[in-house]
Amino acid sequence: MNATEKTISSILIYEGKNIKLIKEEIITPDGHKSVRDIVRHKGACAILAKAEGKLIFIKQYRKALDKVIYELPAGCIEKGEDIYLCAGRELNEETGYEADKLTLLSSVYTTPGFSDEIIHIFYAENVKKAEVKKDADVDEYIDVLLIDEAEAERMIIEGEIVDSKTICALYLYKNKK
Amino acid sequence: MNATEKTISSILIYEGKNIKLIKEEIITPDGHKSVRDIVRHKGACAILAKAEGKLIFIKQYRKALDKVIYELPAGCIEKGEDIYLCAGRELNEETGYEADKLTLLSSVYTTPGFSDEIIHIFYAENVKKAEVKKDADVDEYIDVLLIDEAEAERMIIEGEIVDSKTICALYLYKNKK
Repeated sequence: MNATEKTISSILIYEGKNIKLIKEEIITPDGHKSVRDIVRHKGACAILAKAEGKLIFIKQYRKALDKVIYELPAGCIEKGEDIYLCAGRELNEETGYEADKLTLLSSVYTTPGFSDEIIHIFYAENVKKAEVKKDADVDEYIDVLLIDEAEAERMIIEGEIVDSKTICALYLYKNKK
Repeated sequence: MNATEKTISSILIYEGKNIKLIKEEIITPDGHKSVRDIVRHKGACAILAKAEGKLIFIKQYRKALDKVIYELPAGCIEKGEDIYLCAGRELNEETGYEADKLTLLSSVYTTPGFSDEIIHIFYAENVKKAEVKKDADVDEYIDVLLIDEAEAERMIIEGEIVDSKTICALYLYKNKK
């Protein structure tokens, strides 16, 4: 398949803290003009970690949904930041835990229809309480909780866990080589 | 946890075909002002369907990524459209197959950090070639292919399938009651 879309014009509509909105006028492979609204994102890391034999989850209010949902710890990559350092930093900041070893399970696109957001999903080993917990963002309010793996699976199947990166992480963890 | 963020102002920055960008000024639970950039989305349906004992996949160029990726068939909900009708329509339009029965496995949020996009993930039963294939969007270029379930799992683990809704769908399908 050679279905590449050629960009005719690209306009920056908005630039925020974590996202940029770009409007691109394109030519489809058979010559139609069309528009693609693209949300460019910094990229993020998510971490599947266990403490006391259970999965470390967070509960976090999400303004876009106006509700609190269960997620794995995760956060945006800072400019120039190594993804392993980002994953370790976010695990510490959001949960107060740290890991001796981080393994990249996969990197997934959350919503390729309109955004380039990529989330690097890590598995953390030898997890313990951090001696120094770094501060989370001043505007983040997070509850940390430990959930048994079988219980997390039940929560996914019954629609209590509905965050896609979290479900992907569980899939990758269960099926890793 | 009572961490709701109160909206002070809400500005529509941009309205496109499938997304709107809203900038909200908010007050955090402990009284800080902050900004939330929110991408409001129409919502979508994705369908896990099998034909000839294999999973029906599509390969599609995604402008946001500037590459072709493997995905399950999926598409946006039209205004006022029932999600079951949407799922059946998208399966037909994108793949030329139709199903006697659609079962909702779960509804997941693709990227709750900045968008309310929800994807309703369906499992299709009694799938056969449609007698009448509806036209896809004029600017969609899609290849349909059948992939063995074990091969799809290998492709997820080895990073060849990187679309989050597709990985979520495989998880939900494998673990459904």
